[in-house]
Amino acid sequence: MAHELIYMDNSATSPVDEEVLKEMLPYFNEKFGNASTLYRLGVDAKKALDKARQQVADLINADVDEITFTSGGTESDNMAIKGVALSEIQKATDKNPRNHIITTTIEHPAVLETCKFLEKFGFEVTYLPVDEDGLISLDDLENAIKESTILITIMHSNNEIGTIQPTKEIGEIARKHNVLFHSDAVQSAGKIPVDVKDQNIDILSLSGHKINGPKGIGAIYIKKGVRFEVFMHGGGQEKGLRSGTENMPGIVGLGKAAELARENLETRMQHNKEIRDALIEKVTSQIKDAYVNGSLEKRLPNNVHFRFSGIEGESLILRLDNEGIDGATGSACSTHDLKGSHVLAAIGVKPALSHGSLRLSIGPENSIDDVDYIVASIKKVVDYLRELSPLWDNETDEYIGDRFEKPLEDEDIDRY
Amino acid sequence: MAHELIYMDNSATSPVDEEVLKEMLPYFNEKFGNASTLYRLGVDAKKALDKARQQVADLINADVDEITFTSGGTESDNMAIKGVALSEIQKATDKNPRNHIITTTIEHPAVLETCKFLEKFGFEVTYLPVDEDGLISLDDLENAIKESTILITIMHSNNEIGTIQPTKEIGEIARKHNVLFHSDAVQSAGKIPVDVKDQNIDILSLSGHKINGPKGIGAIYIKKGVRFEVFMHGGGQEKGLRSGTENMPGIVGLGKAAELARENLETRMQHNKEIRDALIEKVTSQIKDAYVNGSLEKRLPNNVHFRFSGIEGESLILRLDNEGIDGATGSACSTHDLKGSHVLAAIGVKPALSHGSLRLSIGPENSIDDVDYIVASIKKVVDYLRELSPLWDNETDEYIGDRFEKPLEDEDIDRY
Ligand SMILES: Cc1ncc(COP(=O)(O)O)c(C=O)c1O
Ligand SMILES: Cc1ncc(COP(=O)(O)O)c(C=O)c1O
Repeated sequence: MAHELIYMDNSATSPVDEEVLKEMLPYFNEKFGNASTLYRLGVDAKKALDKARQQVADLINADVDEITFTSGGTESDNMAIKGVALSEIQKATDKNPRNHIITTTIEHPAVLETCKFLEKFGFEVTYLPVDEDGLISLDDLENAIKESTILITIMHSNNEIGTIQPTKEIGEIARKHNVLFHSDAVQSAGKIPVDVKDQNIDILSLSGHKINGPKGIGAIYIKKGVRFEVFMHGGGQEKGLRSGTENMPGIVGLGKAAELARENLETRMQHNKEIRDALIEKVTSQIKDAYVNGSLEKRLPNNVHFRFSGIEGESLILRLDNEGIDGATGSACSTHDLKGSHVLAAIGVKPALSHGSLRLSIGPENSIDDVDYIVASIKKVVDYLRELSPLWDNETDEYIGDRFEKPLEDEDIDRY
Repeated sequence: MAHELIYMDNSATSPVDEEVLKEMLPYFNEKFGNASTLYRLGVDAKKALDKARQQVADLINADVDEITFTSGGTESDNMAIKGVALSEIQKATDKNPRNHIITTTIEHPAVLETCKFLEKFGFEVTYLPVDEDGLISLDDLENAIKESTILITIMHSNNEIGTIQPTKEIGEIARKHNVLFHSDAVQSAGKIPVDVKDQNIDILSLSGHKINGPKGIGAIYIKKGVRFEVFMHGGGQEKGLRSGTENMPGIVGLGKAAELARENLETRMQHNKEIRDALIEKVTSQIKDAYVNGSLEKRLPNNVHFRFSGIEGESLILRLDNEGIDGATGSACSTHDLKGSHVLAAIGVKPALSHGSLRLSIGPENSIDDVDYIVASIKKVVDYLRELSPLWDNETDEYIGDRFEKPLEDEDIDRY
């Protein structure tokens, strides 16, 4: 490798912080008790569980008993949406159906696929469009609400382009119409202020491995009083809301990661923003035809998302890996998916351009000192790939892909 | 503590084997890549994923692509039953309902509560009784099958009393009637031979933390060709069957634990059996009114389950903890549940007696050399508790609880 690894795919997953791992270790084979047991090993596990729950609650300003541990962001999203849907459908009558859900076209697949699943079973889902910045319109939202609407599920911030939605205002509209509001905050928690009380959130998802905690653990916040059908049935752990033997090392790790994220929120935001803005400034000024996808203002401090005309994302990623830089094209989840990103389609990026995108997501381990090397490497790789590209005219040094580009079809935009 | 801790609650959870932990460690913050990404860190994760899948497949004689990782035994059970139920219901017609499930009264709550949930949504569930040994009748099973039967879900072995069901014969009946057969093998995998091909199993659940692997990870085997509705929707990991960023340390740990369990199966069975039989022999001969719950022959080698008349399980557990011995009363999951065990009720143990039960579950770390100390401690605690017990006559040294005992009500037996 040309360079020590610069990992810039923290929105896909992040390394476990040393301090977090240290807290977790005893729970594998010393304090390995099952939290449901009566003897000391079990009691100690129960205490650790309570502590971690408080740490997670504090990160999002929830009450401790409003936090339930899950196996990750995906489970939290499934649990949130199916939990509300199955609970409400039991209250429905022929005259008063309770089967309408509002979401957006740019949600994570954990939300979109869950909605599609519910559609098969008689639910109706409205997918709100977003503007070219990746933001929903509050008017659209309010207009979409009807008698049968039970849930608004809109992500706190987007995993691909980092756009931050107007959560507080969405929550206000939801309350006004007496509809529950779930927010997928997997990319926001620990990255920007998330406050369920101030932001009027009823249900929220978060995940450990996006905040330098472990993989395979997450949490869901459910506001006191919200009626909810259980998703994971069994032994009655987590007050019956989520059964299964508690993943103690994971839970302890998530708790510690949440604590560190809260304590260092301001510093990390500052750190991320500095690197982000330097990257944006230098890449767009030094590389021809380089654009930023998504809003520049309403954007996660740790997210940069470029679009380079004339090149293909997979080659970009692999060649950058050779330079010692790990980034993403599209979201990690759809990397093996040959269709273009549904998020980029939703903000109006045409397929060929969408393939030439690069997400760099910043973590605490990245350094401003690496920015010049990163920019130089991107430039080198982009120049090289354009030289080979049939969509780039080397004579005029111009993108000519528009000639081949089909217009965006509805099916590109509404893949879900 | 009077004695170094003798942990005998391995059926509730077990410590992570040192070798397993060693394999897991690099995946927290060195090889921490997301298996869906393109660069080397991701590719390495993908390789580790494939290796672990093979290790798990080998433990149960499945093909590697028949294994899907989950967050544990509870999720595997939920996924199995809901996966089949929701897939079949879509094929149902008014004339041909596809909504009948057969299970037993002694399943783990992960199965029973899932069945109860489905009952709320129009499924019909038959709960087969068991005899006083804890075994189902194959005739009962065959008689219960009807046109609308889609699934038989019967555990491989029981988590409380260790009874092993006639899985191979159950599978034969299922095949004959063209009904799918799911077996919860959470307590069997790694403890006794589990062979999905030989035992005619279509779907099987197992869990990491019961075999000295980590908590929060499990697997489901789904035979090639079985139609299945997805339980966890999202990014399409695990070939779309189970979404969510892969819990790499957990998966690597489960793989290694499965490998160790397979390699050492015979030795461990021998080791467990020796300790089990010594405990049974000595406790029943040295302590008055001590009985073994569940079949003596068709029993997990690592399970002992005693019943002592006249005493109360919670005190027994806490006093044994003081002697340095950790065991369980009822199953861990229902420890905080004041109702008696549904399994003991199902084999005809009356409530008061059921409360005086003690499960000791053996692991690789237990030693035959501790048996005498364990038996002496149990005797000491049982004697002491009987002295205090209103259900024990100290004059005659006899149990007098029968006088107060109500007959078993249907609701005791059919708690589910
Ligand atoms: C916005 C968003 N929601 C949900 C998820 C799923 O979380 P997890 O990977 O923990 O299942 C992710 C990450 O993949 C995400 O970015
Ligand atoms: C028979 C059986 N099935 C399912 C489970 C649930 O497994 P897990 O604790 O991994 O969710 C357990 C353990 O509690 C069990 O003993």
